[in-house]
Amino acid sequence: MIKAGIIGGAGYTGLELIRLLLMHPEVEISVVTSRRYKGKPISDVNPYLEPFIELEYEDVDTKEIADRSDIVFLAVPHGTAMDYVPGLMERGAKVIDLSADYRLKKEEYERIYKRKHKDKDKEKRKSVYGLTELHPEVADADLVANPGCYPTGAILAVTPLVKEVMGLNPTMVSQVIFDAKSGISGAGVEPSETSHFPNLAENIIPYQVTAHRHVAEMRMELGVKVSFTPHVIPSIRGILTTAHVFLAHGVELHTNEIERIYKQFYESKRFIRLRKEIPSLSAVRGTNFCDIWVEIEEKSNRIVVISAIDNLVKGGSGQAIQNMNVMFGLDEGEGLWFPGLVP
Amino acid sequence: MIKAGIIGGAGYTGLELIRLLLMHPEVEISVVTSRRYKGKPISDVNPYLEPFIELEYEDVDTKEIADRSDIVFLAVPHGTAMDYVPGLMERGAKVIDLSADYRLKKEEYERIYKRKHKDKDKEKRKSVYGLTELHPEVADADLVANPGCYPTGAILAVTPLVKEVMGLNPTMVSQVIFDAKSGISGAGVEPSETSHFPNLAENIIPYQVTAHRHVAEMRMELGVKVSFTPHVIPSIRGILTTAHVFLAHGVELHTNEIERIYKQFYESKRFIRLRKEIPSLSAVRGTNFCDIWVEIEEKSNRIVVISAIDNLVKGGSGQAIQNMNVMFGLDEGEGLWFPGLVP
Amino acid sequence: MIKAGIIGGAGYTGLELIRLLLMHPEVEISVVTSRRYKGKPISDVNPYLEPFIELEYEDVDTKEIADRSDIVFLAVPHGTAMDYVPGLMERGAKVIDLSADYRLKKEEYERIYKRKHKDKDKEKRKSVYGLTELHPEVADADLVANPGCYPTGAILAVTPLVKEVMGLNPTMVSQVIFDAKSGISGAGVEPSETSHFPNLAENIIPYQVTAHRHVAEMRMELGVKVSFTPHVIPSIRGILTTAHVFLAHGVELHTNEIERIYKQFYESKRFIRLRKEIPSLSAVRGTNFCDIWVEIEEKSNRIVVISAIDNLVKGGSGQAIQNMNVMFGLDEGEGLWFPGLVP
Amino acid sequence: MIKAGIIGGAGYTGLELIRLLLMHPEVEISVVTSRRYKGKPISDVNPYLEPFIELEYEDVDTKEIADRSDIVFLAVPHGTAMDYVPGLMERGAKVIDLSADYRLKKEEYERIYKRKHKDKDKEKRKSVYGLTELHPEVADADLVANPGCYPTGAILAVTPLVKEVMGLNPTMVSQVIFDAKSGISGAGVEPSETSHFPNLAENIIPYQVTAHRHVAEMRMELGVKVSFTPHVIPSIRGILTTAHVFLAHGVELHTNEIERIYKQFYESKRFIRLRKEIPSLSAVRGTNFCDIWVEIEEKSNRIVVISAIDNLVKGGSGQAIQNMNVMFGLDEGEGLWFPGLVP
Repeated sequence: MIKAGIIGGAGYTGLELIRLLLMHPEVEISVVTSRRYKGKPISDVNPYLEPFIELEYEDVDTKEIADRSDIVFLAVPHGTAMDYVPGLMERGAKVIDLSADYRLKKEEYERIYKRKHKDKDKEKRKSVYGLTELHPEVADADLVANPGCYPTGAILAVTPLVKEVMGLNPTMVSQVIFDAKSGISGAGVEPSETSHFPNLAENIIPYQVTAHRHVAEMRMELGVKVSFTPHVIPSIRGILTTAHVFLAHGVELHTNEIERIYKQFYESKRFIRLRKEIPSLSAVRGTNFCDIWVEIEEKSNRIVVISAIDNLVKGGSGQAIQNMNVMFGLDEGEGLWFPGLVP
Repeated sequence: MIKAGIIGGAGYTGLELIRLLLMHPEVEISVVTSRRYKGKPISDVNPYLEPFIELEYEDVDTKEIADRSDIVFLAVPHGTAMDYVPGLMERGAKVIDLSADYRLKKEEYERIYKRKHKDKDKEKRKSVYGLTELHPEVADADLVANPGCYPTGAILAVTPLVKEVMGLNPTMVSQVIFDAKSGISGAGVEPSETSHFPNLAENIIPYQVTAHRHVAEMRMELGVKVSFTPHVIPSIRGILTTAHVFLAHGVELHTNEIERIYKQFYESKRFIRLRKEIPSLSAVRGTNFCDIWVEIEEKSNRIVVISAIDNLVKGGSGQAIQNMNVMFGLDEGEGLWFPGLVP
Repeated sequence: MIKAGIIGGAGYTGLELIRLLLMHPEVEISVVTSRRYKGKPISDVNPYLEPFIELEYEDVDTKEIADRSDIVFLAVPHGTAMDYVPGLMERGAKVIDLSADYRLKKEEYERIYKRKHKDKDKEKRKSVYGLTELHPEVADADLVANPGCYPTGAILAVTPLVKEVMGLNPTMVSQVIFDAKSGISGAGVEPSETSHFPNLAENIIPYQVTAHRHVAEMRMELGVKVSFTPHVIPSIRGILTTAHVFLAHGVELHTNEIERIYKQFYESKRFIRLRKEIPSLSAVRGTNFCDIWVEIEEKSNRIVVISAIDNLVKGGSGQAIQNMNVMFGLDEGEGLWFPGLVP
Repeated sequence: MIKAGIIGGAGYTGLELIRLLLMHPEVEISVVTSRRYKGKPISDVNPYLEPFIELEYEDVDTKEIADRSDIVFLAVPHGTAMDYVPGLMERGAKVIDLSADYRLKKEEYERIYKRKHKDKDKEKRKSVYGLTELHPEVADADLVANPGCYPTGAILAVTPLVKEVMGLNPTMVSQVIFDAKSGISGAGVEPSETSHFPNLAENIIPYQVTAHRHVAEMRMELGVKVSFTPHVIPSIRGILTTAHVFLAHGVELHTNEIERIYKQFYESKRFIRLRKEIPSLSAVRGTNFCDIWVEIEEKSNRIVVISAIDNLVKGGSGQAIQNMNVMFGLDEGEGLWFPGLVP
């Protein structure tokens, strides 16, 4: 059994890790931390977890967490994860960081997140960007930077188009606009103006319309001109990404060509489902799938790609567990292989 | 023009007063207070009111408010309204208090709300319980205690049954159980655990299941055995009250008799609509109507009465304006006579 | 491996059976029928099931279904199940009927469902009412009548109170009013006026207010005076039942006594969770749990019991699988033992 | 009083015309047709309109409708309106057509809507595209083609940018991508797969992703390269349009310049509100406003414009009444001048 520790186990990301790991046949949760709930049984604070977990929330030091765990999941805010990583790795624990702290190059990180990176060995650690489908080197990593929720849906949607087409001709895709729609659980467990029911119900809320930080990950992975605008919809879970992809002047692609490109690219990727119908959030609810659908606009250079994920699973904790499976040589789908909660 | 002041103009109740009074042909809003937003244009804080109101939020003393107003609406929390009432009335302003401070007898109030009543002349003021349909003495009142949202829907639903039947035989109704379902706007403008979208969506939340304070108003007005349990539903506005009325052993009522009782009782009450179909919250959305429907259970002593109101209008600010209309000798429906927002 | 057939696999009940049985380690789905979708791959019609099931919908005769199955789940409308049961049982298949056809005594059924019962051996078959927690004889049954969704939440909520108290004194509980609130998935997969989003959103819809047929099951199981009124809430899944229980005149119960009664009664029942906090639909979402909470009203003879279930799982397909587990001597929780989808 | 007839008064568009015209001080509804409900009191079919309208639905011929009306609103499907227009205009009635039949040039219409245009005088009638803010010639029109809901939000959002900038330099805007999100009421009163609550709740549904017919109106009015993708969100009313505007290579605009352009362009347009904050659907709920907000992306050639309208009011029946006001020389806001239903 793999002993897994969770730092920050009282937010949605940490709780989703618990929910999923409890169903994982090869994992035992070894320690879950929360300063706020220290000493309280986890299933008292979260009655839906009763009677599945008997642990209490703890507030122990990095060293002890490392000693009690083979792998540690960091479900803490950006800027905090880097406080834990050096100590954990020093003691031999593998680490999956669900924050942004190890996703970008140091300079890029500091520019985008407007803070100094405190880990002086940041670049040496060779963190792998944990989009397993695109980064097989996850298998050998000791530190995985789990992707952001928006980048997961966005990057998976258009990579075959951007990369394959670029293989043929690097200037074929002129630009991509990601217009993303997310459930509110992405904003966390704390009540806010945005999550206040009368504000969100019967509404849709665009935010950080031209300046969301996740765009940096998309640019890093895709290498083309990317625009990104996120919205919150009156739903709990899910991200639907509408990618408007524009081909360069004169380039033409046909439906069967596109289908071939996507099929080949994702051939062995079990969590990517290429769809004949427009994806829906319910089909991926509670699951680690990313459903993808493509349509070419007639007499136009636009291709629309739509992807659907559960922001807390494939867009967060599920993908983290998928990475763990790969890091430990398990079947990629272990503990994650079940259909969505429909209806 | 009637000059109307609003104390506490930044919560849902105060804002709904503003929205409705702006459409009232006989009223001019004279002053709106808010400590938090003092000095800010009301339509800056609430952009949906642009360009309908040019006032700023103020923080002025009771005396000044009274001097600038013919009538003052108190949209402040329980326990605070009583700080304003004496000063306002002393300076000759009429007052409609939307809090609970003047609804109950002093002793009852102190017992239920667990605080001393600070107005030493509380009982002398002869506040009228502002369910206009049942209390024509509103017309002569200087101080109206606007009913709670739940009591409005509950009392209007069963009064004909309880009062008329009791006229025939005072022990005919043995008890009433009000199982009420409210939109979350009743909980106010501040984000909370309950109003957090992921907690309320796809859920229904019972609260104060056997001990909600509004039951005191219901008992005061109905004079029969009352049980009350409220729930919050994933909707913004509206209260649907399901009243389970039990007749005493041996009593029998027939549908046409019931219909006659209700029709006669509410004959001239324009805001009560007796329905042939089960009421819906959308039919009363944004309006001052109370829709009522009755069904007798076969071979049983149970009668089910269902009422629907908009908690912020008939259950709050609309009813307050209806009371104002009556107090000033205007048409009862002035400024309030429009159909609901359907769909 | 148990071979399980599903008759009626295209509605929500049938699909939920598929979803859950796919995760069951001891079951193989052997045949799924649907006239409408005959010949179509199940995962083409329901893309969320891809790639978990390779079967096609079939339209085969009862005999063949029985021959290919150890157990057959009937997920067909009331009045249709009785067409299949005799043929299935004759060929040796065990049957779990999710319709109402075998829940009630024949006369009661015919009176309530207003149709003749076509199975001439109806009473001889000794169908067991499949509330496993209350009917251990499920273990020996060949035909289980799976309970209705509303009765499941209602009966489990108050049985300890009614049965235990009646052991002490059979007239102690004078009556129970069940005011139930259900997600719309209970109304099925076909679009209707009620399920039309603009009609249900921002609303709550009472229906069959004094005459819902499920009350017959509640009366059969509880043996006390029962009133029942269902409502549809703007949610997909879940039933929250608010039970207003009235004790007979003079009877008094104390909180610790009630707690003892419930604890003892449900001691070994893994899917019943007695709660310290008011239950929520999200805590049972997607699961087979029934969460129960009790509160005594002060200075009153009312006790309020609130239960929460997922109508499609514990209120339908999950409970059916739980019954199958018991019938086949498996662990009761096999394939059903996981926490709810929160948030 | 203006006598207004409504052809097709049982769908959402027709009902919204009724709701709004009932509050219009200068209008009397003269006739409302519906084949389905012929002879039934309108307020029996739609109880929320009780007691505001005493008319019955009628099924009378074009001639009679024209004779009884000064203006006739056509709230019928595309392809049907053109059956009425010639007869109505012949008898001297002014007409506002809420369908698409008179919005586009004949050839364009026939190509897009894939049907012959049956009105042989279609082009002679000189219908005016009823975006009053952009087409002052509405004042002199006898036939107004009321714009589609999506085009209303889209065109109003970017016209100042496209037109003003083009005045400076016609090639400055290289393209616009409209990613629109609509409430489900736009899909009409009839239940469907898309409007089925379990399908839409907790979801967002893209449709006609590259081929929605409304794009033709956008192109006609804007004259630049337009891409359009609509989505349905789990809300009843409202359209939020996210316009991604790309300036041509080398062009640069500054925030204060943009603000100046918009302010000047919409200076006297009362129903356009330029916002300092991101618009919300609730601020326009039930109203005729179009709220607009603009942001320039740093170091990019993208400008994002977001507009919010109520699809049934400014996107349909409200705009039709605004057009009527202009056609009859009334104040543009008559009957439409009230704030939104918030919360």
